[in-house]
Amino acid sequence: MKKNSRTEEPSFELDFERRSRCGFPEFIYGEGKSLSQLEQICDRMLARGEDVLISRLAPETASRICEIRKDSEYDQTARILRIGRNWKKRKIPGLIYIASAGTTDLPVALEAKLTAEFCGCRTELASDIGVAGIHRTLSKLDCMRRADVVIAVAGMEGALPSVIGGLVACPVIAVPTSVGYGSSMNGIAALLAMLNSCASGICVVNIDNGFGAACAAIRILNSKKTKGGD
Amino acid sequence: MKKNSRTEEPSFELDFERRSRCGFPEFIYGEGKSLSQLEQICDRMLARGEDVLISRLAPETASRICEIRKDSEYDQTARILRIGRNWKKRKIPGLIYIASAGTTDLPVALEAKLTAEFCGCRTELASDIGVAGIHRTLSKLDCMRRADVVIAVAGMEGALPSVIGGLVACPVIAVPTSVGYGSSMNGIAALLAMLNSCASGICVVNIDNGFGAACAAIRILNSKKTKGGD
Amino acid sequence: MKKNSRTEEPSFELDFERRSRCGFPEFIYGEGKSLSQLEQICDRMLARGEDVLISRLAPETASRICEIRKDSEYDQTARILRIGRNWKKRKIPGLIYIASAGTTDLPVALEAKLTAEFCGCRTELASDIGVAGIHRTLSKLDCMRRADVVIAVAGMEGALPSVIGGLVACPVIAVPTSVGYGSSMNGIAALLAMLNSCASGICVVNIDNGFGAACAAIRILNSKKTKGGD
Amino acid sequence: MKKNSRTEEPSFELDFERRSRCGFPEFIYGEGKSLSQLEQICDRMLARGEDVLISRLAPETASRICEIRKDSEYDQTARILRIGRNWKKRKIPGLIYIASAGTTDLPVALEAKLTAEFCGCRTELASDIGVAGIHRTLSKLDCMRRADVVIAVAGMEGALPSVIGGLVACPVIAVPTSVGYGSSMNGIAALLAMLNSCASGICVVNIDNGFGAACAAIRILNSKKTKGGD
Amino acid sequence: MKKNSRTEEPSFELDFERRSRCGFPEFIYGEGKSLSQLEQICDRMLARGEDVLISRLAPETASRICEIRKDSEYDQTARILRIGRNWKKRKIPGLIYIASAGTTDLPVALEAKLTAEFCGCRTELASDIGVAGIHRTLSKLDCMRRADVVIAVAGMEGALPSVIGGLVACPVIAVPTSVGYGSSMNGIAALLAMLNSCASGICVVNIDNGFGAACAAIRILNSKKTKGGD
Amino acid sequence: MKKNSRTEEPSFELDFERRSRCGFPEFIYGEGKSLSQLEQICDRMLARGEDVLISRLAPETASRICEIRKDSEYDQTARILRIGRNWKKRKIPGLIYIASAGTTDLPVALEAKLTAEFCGCRTELASDIGVAGIHRTLSKLDCMRRADVVIAVAGMEGALPSVIGGLVACPVIAVPTSVGYGSSMNGIAALLAMLNSCASGICVVNIDNGFGAACAAIRILNSKKTKGGD
Amino acid sequence: MKKNSRTEEPSFELDFERRSRCGFPEFIYGEGKSLSQLEQICDRMLARGEDVLISRLAPETASRICEIRKDSEYDQTARILRIGRNWKKRKIPGLIYIASAGTTDLPVALEAKLTAEFCGCRTELASDIGVAGIHRTLSKLDCMRRADVVIAVAGMEGALPSVIGGLVACPVIAVPTSVGYGSSMNGIAALLAMLNSCASGICVVNIDNGFGAACAAIRILNSKKTKGGD
Amino acid sequence: MKKNSRTEEPSFELDFERRSRCGFPEFIYGEGKSLSQLEQICDRMLARGEDVLISRLAPETASRICEIRKDSEYDQTARILRIGRNWKKRKIPGLIYIASAGTTDLPVALEAKLTAEFCGCRTELASDIGVAGIHRTLSKLDCMRRADVVIAVAGMEGALPSVIGGLVACPVIAVPTSVGYGSSMNGIAALLAMLNSCASGICVVNIDNGFGAACAAIRILNSKKTKGGD
Repeated sequence: MKKNSRTEEPSFELDFERRSRCGFPEFIYGEGKSLSQLEQICDRMLARGEDVLISRLAPETASRICEIRKDSEYDQTARILRIGRNWKKRKIPGLIYIASAGTTDLPVALEAKLTAEFCGCRTELASDIGVAGIHRTLSKLDCMRRADVVIAVAGMEGALPSVIGGLVACPVIAVPTSVGYGSSMNGIAALLAMLNSCASGICVVNIDNGFGAACAAIRILNSKKTKGGD
Repeated sequence: MKKNSRTEEPSFELDFERRSRCGFPEFIYGEGKSLSQLEQICDRMLARGEDVLISRLAPETASRICEIRKDSEYDQTARILRIGRNWKKRKIPGLIYIASAGTTDLPVALEAKLTAEFCGCRTELASDIGVAGIHRTLSKLDCMRRADVVIAVAGMEGALPSVIGGLVACPVIAVPTSVGYGSSMNGIAALLAMLNSCASGICVVNIDNGFGAACAAIRILNSKKTKGGD
Repeated sequence: MKKNSRTEEPSFELDFERRSRCGFPEFIYGEGKSLSQLEQICDRMLARGEDVLISRLAPETASRICEIRKDSEYDQTARILRIGRNWKKRKIPGLIYIASAGTTDLPVALEAKLTAEFCGCRTELASDIGVAGIHRTLSKLDCMRRADVVIAVAGMEGALPSVIGGLVACPVIAVPTSVGYGSSMNGIAALLAMLNSCASGICVVNIDNGFGAACAAIRILNSKKTKGGD
Repeated sequence: MKKNSRTEEPSFELDFERRSRCGFPEFIYGEGKSLSQLEQICDRMLARGEDVLISRLAPETASRICEIRKDSEYDQTARILRIGRNWKKRKIPGLIYIASAGTTDLPVALEAKLTAEFCGCRTELASDIGVAGIHRTLSKLDCMRRADVVIAVAGMEGALPSVIGGLVACPVIAVPTSVGYGSSMNGIAALLAMLNSCASGICVVNIDNGFGAACAAIRILNSKKTKGGD
Repeated sequence: MKKNSRTEEPSFELDFERRSRCGFPEFIYGEGKSLSQLEQICDRMLARGEDVLISRLAPETASRICEIRKDSEYDQTARILRIGRNWKKRKIPGLIYIASAGTTDLPVALEAKLTAEFCGCRTELASDIGVAGIHRTLSKLDCMRRADVVIAVAGMEGALPSVIGGLVACPVIAVPTSVGYGSSMNGIAALLAMLNSCASGICVVNIDNGFGAACAAIRILNSKKTKGGD
Repeated sequence: MKKNSRTEEPSFELDFERRSRCGFPEFIYGEGKSLSQLEQICDRMLARGEDVLISRLAPETASRICEIRKDSEYDQTARILRIGRNWKKRKIPGLIYIASAGTTDLPVALEAKLTAEFCGCRTELASDIGVAGIHRTLSKLDCMRRADVVIAVAGMEGALPSVIGGLVACPVIAVPTSVGYGSSMNGIAALLAMLNSCASGICVVNIDNGFGAACAAIRILNSKKTKGGD
Repeated sequence: MKKNSRTEEPSFELDFERRSRCGFPEFIYGEGKSLSQLEQICDRMLARGEDVLISRLAPETASRICEIRKDSEYDQTARILRIGRNWKKRKIPGLIYIASAGTTDLPVALEAKLTAEFCGCRTELASDIGVAGIHRTLSKLDCMRRADVVIAVAGMEGALPSVIGGLVACPVIAVPTSVGYGSSMNGIAALLAMLNSCASGICVVNIDNGFGAACAAIRILNSKKTKGGD
Repeated sequence: MKKNSRTEEPSFELDFERRSRCGFPEFIYGEGKSLSQLEQICDRMLARGEDVLISRLAPETASRICEIRKDSEYDQTARILRIGRNWKKRKIPGLIYIASAGTTDLPVALEAKLTAEFCGCRTELASDIGVAGIHRTLSKLDCMRRADVVIAVAGMEGALPSVIGGLVACPVIAVPTSVGYGSSMNGIAALLAMLNSCASGICVVNIDNGFGAACAAIRILNSKKTKGGD
């Protein structure tokens, strides 16, 4: 770009009080942000003593950040970068069970897992337990029943949360994925299926939103001490 | 209507050769046809010795036809009227198992059952075996495995055919129903789920099309004698 | 209907183990079920000592049932019928706060409230606190922060859960309603808004599904004793 | 990627009993799987004596696998890779006729053909017989009538299965393709047309799902021996 | 309504020059207009010597108008009212062939026929020639080839215009109808099919718009004298 | 309803400060509110000296309210009820020109007009000036150029605002209506057209939202005194 | 690709009788066809004395074909390749006027122009006459009125055909283009607008289908000699 | 491309009177235009003394134009190129406040800002004030209340304009952005939310149309002198 090219941008307003209000810090959505924008945000958060989690981060950008910041960890499948060391010491009691229908749903399941870990949650992840081999789903039933929250991740027809929801009493968070083609319409089919589950009390997050599912699970684990009392 | 009102209509062209070409006769789609149109069609078909099946027929119209034709039978739930006596003697070998997810899916399941019977097929119907109580689905497994074709009927998230498709080897015909509300969008959610089933080799008919599922099943049973040979 | 009219129907298969598996009993979805079907279901459930909750029940049918069963209570706005006396003694600790954006969203908010009560939950409901008068939303903040779960009900642009989700740490269940017209497309606009909330960890149920939101809340309150341990 | 980058993945759970349950083995969906994931799956399946079929496999990845495994065959148009030698000896009686509307529908038609062959089915394929030149469709009528199943593949307006369905008595499986532009909406137009066919008893699979159509045909041919008896 | 109820309405602005600009007069769209609005419009048009055609007119309203105006003719199926006597003398050379797929498409086919007649066109109408009985379609080929324009009317999968378009050289105007259910989405399936026809040079009007198809045909017949010359 | 039927409802929270914040009072959306709810709201607003405007009010309910409150005025076409006398004295300088494409768009145009008048605005309304008779649109150009805001109301293809937007310099608010059928999809076609106008600087409100267009116009007229200064 | 890669393809079935049936030859749709497929088709058509028109052809492929065949002409904007010399001598009387709303609609307008010329039609093309500068549209009125057919090409809100349709008596073929962004949804907005035109007798082809519009125009010009007689 | 390749294009028709009619000049939409087309347009506009604004211009093309024209300025984020010097002297009284929900919405917010400046408007831009941190939104309230127009830019659930619209009296122009994923459907979710805002009198432009929002704001500021008078 020539010198008569420029970019005018206001500075960022970070929400440092989010942790106290919501129980988790501001996370950074990596998509659509430039390296320089991300660098600036990291600087300011780390300066305040906050670890940083960047989701949906392209490998090239992640690679650049990892070179500079030695205490960073990037997962290529989940596309998540975590910077800092404090998060490894955090601990929220309870277990999040992440059930994933197929191998291609793994990036979303891992996004959930890594986000939950970053906030101090213990997780277990089972893959390839889609309903077309219902014995595989059922074989995990004991594990699921031990969990405090189940995150059920599935693309295509999105049936997994319905089956699980009929088998466990704990909260079930359904995550549709964009896995599929044609009339799956990038996950719309799975999303609609989950919203219309015949198993009562399933709740749903956006397509491919493993991150959001983790946050919902954290809200649940965080609220374990009954406040409304009796 | 005054005398300066009139209705100009061409006469019907019935397709009497459909039975020889397709293995079943022309059926009459009742919706949108007037009583006088239906009467005319019945007269011409019965005169040719063809029994008549009218689908999607409103109870009021059915009641009127039943008054005149004593050899007619109307099912209010399935909204199907069958006229004539020959169909009770017809017989196609094989068993069609109709699995229905919920009580409100029954009209569609019965439409399939009555159509199949009209063509001489033996059927079994199980209701309330949706996947939110997966033990109920599994309890029917032996019956399903004895069948030559399974018709799986479900509204809401439409997951039933996926589970069945992973458990049986015979053809599975999935019928989405318009049961549900909100984002079920009158059955679109169930339809999309079935089209995107992770169980291989499921095939799908239109929303609420129990009739079409029966026809597809009849095609399968009719083709039992291998023609392409070897 | 003439005598050559009939209705052939398989008997119902109720899921009496749902309470032990899921923490709440089988509820009855009233839409599309005939009075005789409902009567049959009620008989069988009450005979087993289970109270009955029928959702989406038309006033005419409710009126007929109420005449016969003296221990029944019908709410016209919520369209919910509750039969039996045991449910009034049940008690799950914790508080569910139901925030409703506008007056016309009340039927859905009440469906949530009455369902939750039926399962023994304590609830509080605030109406008319939509974001176009943000001071009204904010005035309820203290109440919301005392709750264990917030159910946020809104039609039209469905913004209420986003604002609440940024202010509280507890789980937030968003319920889109079909309130609106034109491009609201019967609640699709609100549903999409909630699925795309910029507040992390909001989860969503189907349009007008106050019932499902209550079930999700019950799952959360029921899971208060950490099982996954530590 | 730097050393602080990593990928954490659970191991695969293959469904080796699928052949005994469904009549065909687990197939591998190639899209979205990495070379290393595919290698791992191939190793485990071949070790169990199962041949491998990978669908929707990019040429570059296929090329890499073909270098290593000498008993592999890749078809660039169908994007299918078949590994092993056992499949060439398998034989299911009956003939599958694959009718393809246009030249650009060929990849989907070939996906059906190669999948069916892999399971031991005999197939015939005719291309360029779309309904805009109805004489071409009709010229294949004798061949179609000799078949046990017809798979009808078409994009754009998807009319081919309707015409064929009115001419043959055997099962007709309709496969919409994404061929077209603008309001074809990547095959949605053809899909809807097929679901709404005026020819009774047509059943439909997902857009571009030649693979699924073949599986449905195999289910039909496999069930040739009447089980439900008489 | 009480006296404090009123309705304030501007007067109509009729487009009396439309005939000279477009070759046909302003027609009146009956839906959503009150009896008094229609009366006013009729008065003003008839006073100018223009006959009146009102489309989509409910039988009750038509009945009221017919009582007063003796030179009016209403067709219940087409829902068209024609007032005046001049139109019977008008004559545009050429023949419009109206091909209708099924009996339930007749209202739309007749709307086209009656509109075309009102403008002086000669028409022929054939019903029940849908593509599921392709011999019926083909049996009308000679008639269609004698026509100057073909209007092809079909609901459900909307395949008829594609077959006809491949067989005739004259202009083909495709009219999708709302006949069908479920995924026909009130005619959207047929509309999309027609827009994506593999027969070149088909053009399409709105769903159920028999009236518009007739107008398009009239434009074609009116332009028979080559103007652009050579 | 029997005595075991009841309705539990929280009381309303009216937003009395809306006038000071937004420049217009809280209006009442009539759809979905019961007579008793409306009565309660009217009482409280009138008691505070606020006149009441209820939009989308059914004639039957309006009739009941008009009987009691003598200072009320109901317009059947616009479905608007206005109660009180103060609004007739209010006056905001400037002129709102309401351009309506067709006669059937009038209810929406009148909703805009009556709402604007209630807030003290002067309005002019022209009907039947749709673009299919472009001379009619152009004949109003001088009037439009005298206006401070133009509200352009159109259904079907929604082209009117594009033509007007290219001819005037003042703000143009486009209101799509649900007038049309088939692929108009209840106004979605017109809405999309307006959002994609090739005339720069058109802004759009919801389908049939004449009320909202008036509010937008009032915001513009109210802000006539430059605040941001210079 | 390795030697164990191959592509199995049936040979093409060209429709050489299309010219006698439809008045124009089979055209070749370039998208999705390989160079070798195209070469084969060209060879066979040219051998029969038919010139070749390939639409939607990528520049790279076109370049390769042009190198070999000296009598070929490629237009980069229209993406059309025409091979042979006979077409320049053909002549159909009459004038096609192509009106294009904006500069970015030109590729579609040119596709229409070049196709029409290939069939022997005389054309005139005017660009940049969209309705946001209605004087530009009106300035072409005399030219349009001299034409035998008008093809009106527009993206975004697609209003141009409505204005033209109200001004001319000849047939108007509307072509929506995918020009636009956001809610234009790749031309769906323009398509819907054109299907819902308030100008009677407009007919519509698929999005970006300049080719199809030309074919429809050719059908009209070809049918200039009244066949249905009188 | 070989010599037998060519491109035939009509010359451009620029709308030089747009400034006098609409209050702003013709702007150039950069997408889909070639460098040579843009050069030609620039030449002709600059020759007439008009400055040039090109929106949606790719950096590569911008770079080429900047090399030649020294008085040009390109903003990479907004993708806007402005050529000429006159625009810096223009001045329209009043203040436009641009409120942007998140960092990734900045390109759209800047497109609005740079367009408004080009026409002589004073602007203020605040970023990162989305409703999930409502205190950030509220902290800008004083600034917003000083403005003459607020442009509210938001992706995802698009709630920002609803909150602002309930707090300020001036016109609010809502701009949905395509920021988001999955069910945001490239901005459709935000668009629908804004169209269904519960804050009265919000008006909306197309997705990502910062440019159009600026034009709407300019129309408002330009019309500050009441014309309709009183």
